[in-house]
Amino acid sequence: MCELLAMSANTPTDLCFSFTGLTRRGGVTGPHKDGWGVAFYEGKGVRAFHDADASARSRIAEVVQTHPIKSEVAVCHIRQANVGDICLANTHPFIRELWGRYWVFAHNGQLRRFRCPEGFYEPVGDTDSEALFCDLLNHLRRHCHRDSPRDEVLAWLVRLSAAYASEGVFNLLLSNGDWLFSYCSTKMTSITRRAPFGPARLKDADLTVDFAAETTPDDVVSIIATEPLTTDETWDPYQPGEWRLWRKGEVIRSGQGPVRPD
Amino acid sequence: MCELLAMSANTPTDLCFSFTGLTRRGGVTGPHKDGWGVAFYEGKGVRAFHDADASARSRIAEVVQTHPIKSEVAVCHIRQANVGDICLANTHPFIRELWGRYWVFAHNGQLRRFRCPEGFYEPVGDTDSEALFCDLLNHLRRHCHRDSPRDEVLAWLVRLSAAYASEGVFNLLLSNGDWLFSYCSTKMTSITRRAPFGPARLKDADLTVDFAAETTPDDVVSIIATEPLTTDETWDPYQPGEWRLWRKGEVIRSGQGPVRPD
Repeated sequence: MCELLAMSANTPTDLCFSFTGLTRRGGVTGPHKDGWGVAFYEGKGVRAFHDADASARSRIAEVVQTHPIKSEVAVCHIRQANVGDICLANTHPFIRELWGRYWVFAHNGQLRRFRCPEGFYEPVGDTDSEALFCDLLNHLRRHCHRDSPRDEVLAWLVRLSAAYASEGVFNLLLSNGDWLFSYCSTKMTSITRRAPFGPARLKDADLTVDFAAETTPDDVVSIIATEPLTTDETWDPYQPGEWRLWRKGEVIRSGQGPVRPD
Repeated sequence: MCELLAMSANTPTDLCFSFTGLTRRGGVTGPHKDGWGVAFYEGKGVRAFHDADASARSRIAEVVQTHPIKSEVAVCHIRQANVGDICLANTHPFIRELWGRYWVFAHNGQLRRFRCPEGFYEPVGDTDSEALFCDLLNHLRRHCHRDSPRDEVLAWLVRLSAAYASEGVFNLLLSNGDWLFSYCSTKMTSITRRAPFGPARLKDADLTVDFAAETTPDDVVSIIATEPLTTDETWDPYQPGEWRLWRKGEVIRSGQGPVRPD
């Protein structure tokens, strides 16, 4: 399987601390050594890094760990291959443009038998994950439009995620740069950090950070991950079937099952 | 304006030497300090780096200069902004998926009045370059299909490039990972290095490389650039209106004006 990590923040924030913890699981404290990738939104632009090597030993991952790249939305993935070869084309997150925005997708799980029906978007690699992403965007393009209310798009995301999850394991992170949608099929957790900020210690590396020294009192920064990344904070696990829509560090919609009117 | 750089090779080759020369022009030996980007194909996958900062002072550019990333096709761009803000979304090369492949596009020039008619692909940023790329792909999607003979796609690329060039400056690099298409509206040059390999000295940095020590006798590596990057080699300038189609380091088709039967 794989591990997921995302950030939603109300001010441009770097991901160095969490990324350092996660990438240790790519070959040192965990078995997810078949590639890694991360995408940082900067306005409508996306800065992405992908590598088919183990994140714990990657020179490029080292730069991302130590060079603060500030973003309000970031999506990250470390891979333990099941479907598809170990190669760059199969490395998450996947990115496509829809309605003049870049959409970023990372998936943990497996739908072995899934094949993407023909449509506008096509997978480049041969993972079930990229095929699911293309299928999802093809549905959005068919059923929604650029000015669709957010709740209409959200309802499709929840409906599609539940359908995929009924056929396999489908833990999802998806962003269009404005909001971040997360769906838990089996395992996902989150933490929201806000004032008063305190210290935190990574589970996978001998590293502690004092968030009070790195933030302002108005900052709200949330981390979503497959498993907690720190040992001394209380994470908020998702239930199977639960989805949360994040924006600027806060959950703005959530539920289990279909979207209900706000 | 901007500067372009591309590589086509018959074996995975790094771009460290040429990239070091080009990126010096992004704020030290040249004025192209409004961002830079590079895309390296690795199989069907693409590894891209983008930065809205000056390449001569970018930490990420430094990694690309010193960390050998091996590829058979790479496309690079340093920007001096004219149309569009200085931001990540406006930083070349631009990437889209068509027919299950990533297409990479970089442009030098200006078509101030160009607006992309509505279509499948839409620009995310606000450069004329990205709008041109979307328009070009929308034409390909409309007039060709995934199994179109290469010459049919090429004929469209030449026709579209000539049309764009008739309305402004349009120097183009475009790849689908298999071949690399280059179109010269005003300025472009290339060099093909093959055995016997010799040394070369950069124009923009005090750096010499001995290609004989870094290659095998069968290697063929071509560099395409806006201006020569070395002082002691003979570069082969394009004429205005000239296009060359590169594959595995060799020109496989070329001409001035429409594509003629092979």
